[in-house]
Amino acid sequence: MTLPNLFNLLQKDFPVDIQALRTAHPEHWMRAAAIRTLTLDAVAAANSGHSGMPMGMADVATVLFEKHLKFDPKAPHWPDRDRFILSAGHGSMLIYALLHLTGYEQATLQQLKDFRQWGARTAGHPEYGHLEGVETTTGPLGQGIANSVGFALAEEILRARYGKNVINHHTYVIAGDGCLMEGVSQEAIGLAGMQKLGHLIVFFDNNNITIDGTVDMADITDQSARFAASGWHVLEIDGHDPKAIDKAIVAAKAETGRPTMINCKTHIALGHAAQDTSKGHGALTNADQLQAAKEAYGWDYGPFEIPADVKSQWEAFGDRGAAARADWDARFAKLSKSKQDEFNRAFALDAPKKLSATIKAFKKQASEAGKKVATRASSESVLEVINPIMAETVGGSADLTGSNNTKTADLGVHTPDNREGRYIHYGIREHGMAAAMNGMVLHGGIRPYGGTFMCFTDYARGAMRLSALMKVPTVYVMTHDSIGLGEDGPTHQPVEHLAMLRATPNTNVFRPADSVEVAEAWELALTEKETPSVLALSRQGLPLVRTEHKTKNMSAQGAYVLADAEAGKRQAILMATGSEVSVAMEARAILEAEGIGTRVVSMPCWELFEQQDEKIRKRVLPGGPVRVAIEAGIRFGWDRWLFGERGKREKSGFVGMHDFGASAPAPELFEQFGITAEATAQKVRELLG
Amino acid sequence: MTLPNLFNLLQKDFPVDIQALRTAHPEHWMRAAAIRTLTLDAVAAANSGHSGMPMGMADVATVLFEKHLKFDPKAPHWPDRDRFILSAGHGSMLIYALLHLTGYEQATLQQLKDFRQWGARTAGHPEYGHLEGVETTTGPLGQGIANSVGFALAEEILRARYGKNVINHHTYVIAGDGCLMEGVSQEAIGLAGMQKLGHLIVFFDNNNITIDGTVDMADITDQSARFAASGWHVLEIDGHDPKAIDKAIVAAKAETGRPTMINCKTHIALGHAAQDTSKGHGALTNADQLQAAKEAYGWDYGPFEIPADVKSQWEAFGDRGAAARADWDARFAKLSKSKQDEFNRAFALDAPKKLSATIKAFKKQASEAGKKVATRASSESVLEVINPIMAETVGGSADLTGSNNTKTADLGVHTPDNREGRYIHYGIREHGMAAAMNGMVLHGGIRPYGGTFMCFTDYARGAMRLSALMKVPTVYVMTHDSIGLGEDGPTHQPVEHLAMLRATPNTNVFRPADSVEVAEAWELALTEKETPSVLALSRQGLPLVRTEHKTKNMSAQGAYVLADAEAGKRQAILMATGSEVSVAMEARAILEAEGIGTRVVSMPCWELFEQQDEKIRKRVLPGGPVRVAIEAGIRFGWDRWLFGERGKREKSGFVGMHDFGASAPAPELFEQFGITAEATAQKVRELLG
Repeated sequence: MTLPNLFNLLQKDFPVDIQALRTAHPEHWMRAAAIRTLTLDAVAAANSGHSGMPMGMADVATVLFEKHLKFDPKAPHWPDRDRFILSAGHGSMLIYALLHLTGYEQATLQQLKDFRQWGARTAGHPEYGHLEGVETTTGPLGQGIANSVGFALAEEILRARYGKNVINHHTYVIAGDGCLMEGVSQEAIGLAGMQKLGHLIVFFDNNNITIDGTVDMADITDQSARFAASGWHVLEIDGHDPKAIDKAIVAAKAETGRPTMINCKTHIALGHAAQDTSKGHGALTNADQLQAAKEAYGWDYGPFEIPADVKSQWEAFGDRGAAARADWDARFAKLSKSKQDEFNRAFALDAPKKLSATIKAFKKQASEAGKKVATRASSESVLEVINPIMAETVGGSADLTGSNNTKTADLGVHTPDNREGRYIHYGIREHGMAAAMNGMVLHGGIRPYGGTFMCFTDYARGAMRLSALMKVPTVYVMTHDSIGLGEDGPTHQPVEHLAMLRATPNTNVFRPADSVEVAEAWELALTEKETPSVLALSRQGLPLVRTEHKTKNMSAQGAYVLADAEAGKRQAILMATGSEVSVAMEARAILEAEGIGTRVVSMPCWELFEQQDEKIRKRVLPGGPVRVAIEAGIRFGWDRWLFGERGKREKSGFVGMHDFGASAPAPELFEQFGITAEATAQKVRELLG
Repeated sequence: MTLPNLFNLLQKDFPVDIQALRTAHPEHWMRAAAIRTLTLDAVAAANSGHSGMPMGMADVATVLFEKHLKFDPKAPHWPDRDRFILSAGHGSMLIYALLHLTGYEQATLQQLKDFRQWGARTAGHPEYGHLEGVETTTGPLGQGIANSVGFALAEEILRARYGKNVINHHTYVIAGDGCLMEGVSQEAIGLAGMQKLGHLIVFFDNNNITIDGTVDMADITDQSARFAASGWHVLEIDGHDPKAIDKAIVAAKAETGRPTMINCKTHIALGHAAQDTSKGHGALTNADQLQAAKEAYGWDYGPFEIPADVKSQWEAFGDRGAAARADWDARFAKLSKSKQDEFNRAFALDAPKKLSATIKAFKKQASEAGKKVATRASSESVLEVINPIMAETVGGSADLTGSNNTKTADLGVHTPDNREGRYIHYGIREHGMAAAMNGMVLHGGIRPYGGTFMCFTDYARGAMRLSALMKVPTVYVMTHDSIGLGEDGPTHQPVEHLAMLRATPNTNVFRPADSVEVAEAWELALTEKETPSVLALSRQGLPLVRTEHKTKNMSAQGAYVLADAEAGKRQAILMATGSEVSVAMEARAILEAEGIGTRVVSMPCWELFEQQDEKIRKRVLPGGPVRVAIEAGIRFGWDRWLFGERGKREKSGFVGMHDFGASAPAPELFEQFGITAEATAQKVRELLG
């Protein structure tokens, strides 16, 4: 493919004179050149990576870290630090260079040399948990800017709760054209604009280059106008002019009533032969060109070599935060002991001691009441007792509040006028919601949960995967979890979504059968520190199956015997989740009446069951009896349980969906698709011959 | 939750006087009232559904169908009809009422009475294929507007190819706040703006109401400014003023150089007690309120009753298209016979006769050349021979053209200045790309394929599911299909995505092992009429495994024996897909050298294998030998094949991923994660004891 000569095109519109830049701000220039040359050296060593973006945004990042960012490399988890989010995560060498230069202990020079190698903290894209100072995992474009809305919301909520002496910081984001073309960015921009997140400042790396060519090959959007349309404060600057950068950040910080977007016109791969071209986006490894770029920079040093004076200037920026942090420690110490404890507990993701007793009490009451309730409604009832004792929960829904049952009486709606509100109307933005929730939990001090119809996990999936990859315990309340949704039809009826979620590593998928299991699922979700949870909840009313009160959290085992055959008479095991557990119980009644001893196993969380010892799994699912699984989703994945642990294979069958659903009242759908007690009993009879 | 009194709020800003509307345009009023009352009656009969949107947009739809829409109910598949897309699909009664009123044969009154019932064509949301006149399945918000970009692109491409005498129509869309809050809408808006799709006209149903409350509870975006920022022509009107509506549509049609957004200020549930409230969004079933609304409308008729004069006016609009259609037939007949054949063949989704021979020739050459090639590169080579003989293919990529290998030499880039171009730079918009591709195939005459990294099926998933549900053969070229992607790390390495896609009904997931299987996969994908295909392709070079030339498309069986043990000596079966087939072949060499007879089964497409007779499946995977599956993804779903067809369960094992990947060079990752020939051989040895 022939591309236009972008270099010339851009030179005409926005010329750059490296020598003039060097001369105008010589000290700044060398500091920024340190980022540029570390990037070139690391990418050359790895023989892969993305050179152009760090080279283009080095000036902005330098001024930000020099003059504005509140951070202390000695205390990377300081709760009141400013957050720096590299949404354009492919430019990972920018953040790695910054963390090294400013003195983060983990960001050693060796790590930069090991960029993109096995076991290094300096992964191809910034990975949360690998390297201190990396606030979130980025790379899938748009995620960082969408996370940042959650970071900024968390800051607002905690500032309102703890006061600005304790929480009062900014969230800075660098986003590129790619981030802004991804739809999730619009969800983030819209939500941030409406919420008037004045402490959120986004730098748009406006370099006019994507992998395929110039941006206008795919987009002619005036990004400044677009942000302004959603209520943002917008500034436009030359992204290589340190004075302009500083002035813009000062103005952005002064504007506390709106988020700010600083549109930074930049040159990708500044000063390199590939400047202003798509080639500049990728790995610039040519040794001669690399040397030429260094010469243009006036950088007379070897690979990975940073002159002492430049390094010491950078380290001084890193040291600057120590005093601010000490001040903060003193201010924090003035909080009441109980506030301090609450703050520390929430940041540690520890559940309150009361949670266990609260859940037990709820379960006792529910098992005694014996009501038929939709699990989404049970979930609301559980939240009604949890939210008052867990100030760190922040609920929300993607415009399905009444359907997802996510709002409890004590949660005020979070708005610019009510920053203490713990309920967020995310709008019709499942992806943005999920990413914002990830941002909140990453910020610390918040345990977010948010709801939509389970089918729209499809929309949220990009961020849900990152919850799992980052090991953050975001909670997804996914209601209307099957054809039980009824008339809205197949576009709204999940059939493959349980499989899709179960297939995802490090994701606990709960499909509780009744109020008791719902309470157990919430307890597990809210005590989890490293795994996101999905609660798949029914639209339709479900009879209580856990009629016998047990204080133990049975769901913690993942699967357990709910009802059994008489000793020695077990011929069948029925396995089911959620709304189909009561179907299994009905089928058991039919079979037992016919003299067929039948065990029912409720399997609310496969992942937790998989983590049990084999002997526990065998105790729940012993060899011998025929096995039938019942679930109003597709079979995919069920073979793991239908075929049993090692040893002899059991005869088995599946009662569930084989294709997409349909539009009709729910009871008719269960009949038409054959997901009934009688169909289950018949399957057992057939297997028994 | 207490909501503000929205009715009063809106009344203040935008009052409405039903009586004045009735008086001003009495005939129009009654025509629109027919839509409103059919909506009220059908929702009441179903006791579910969404009344407010059809009632709010009835005026716009009436004027559109009366004065502008080019359609012929007697020929619903007429290729040059205007397309009408109800992106706000929950308002399905709007389109059902329109189709009934204008005389679509399938849209009987009984169908309206059976709204949302089992077996009815009038599903809860408009379902493509259920009812003629429904151009696409909508309901998941934002899909319709994103499809429409594909419809409009298809129209541009075909107009350029066949001339405006044959293709020259508009795509009209109704989108609501929900559609516009979904991120995918931004991807659509951006792409349509850049492509200057002058025949695309979007009506924004600006009623300020969502399910949770007023729009400003979640969004303060100035939608007119937002569209304008992406290069759209924007008009703002009172959506209940038929003259204003007409004038706007006239202006929109006159603007051929840009897509038009008509911002229609409307009252949801106009004239009902629930007007201008969230309640009005849902099912308005209260009998007294229903009657009161009818009285306000001056509608003195029973349920589902349309007075003859109103019905005949509507039918006249339906009849209007017959003459235009007859003219079109005459114009079409003037095309050369070969052009007509090509046109009809493409609209019938028939592959050209030459395809089979072309693929066979490619396979022969590839199997003889014996080169090590990445399957993404093989895919490009196959496309190089296919695209020249299939004028209906339209390729593209979400800004990864060089990585996805989707562009062939003969495909010009589609731009406003080159409407014949068959390659689309979709931008960094996986979801928008997928939805646009669905729109193109739904339009007819086009077979779209588009690429991104396989991991970003996460982003495209909302539209990919709809390909499957709608039964349209969109082709997804998903490259970098495993940890073989290497240094970019776990954010870019799919591990659960094969499972996720295989779990989705009606989706053929191909993971070809080499150039020959790639060619076979393309042949199957491009001859498919009702099933989307995903091609999972490697970044890394793969040795040829199909060294023996076979003219038969072996992949069509889904799985087949690639290499076998000597008769009677078979102790192990290795099953693998894609890049791991060569690993299996290496393992086989090790095992055979040790005297362990080993069969290798390549399984490029599970779905096609599942469709085979059990006896074929048993022939490929006979009972007896131990089984080991090798795939650089997670195990989820493999148990289906590891445990064999009925009968005795085999000893089995899995060599693959157990968690997310990591950032490092690909060969190191395969070693570290133990996906090697030696690990496979060792697994076999262990199973054999």
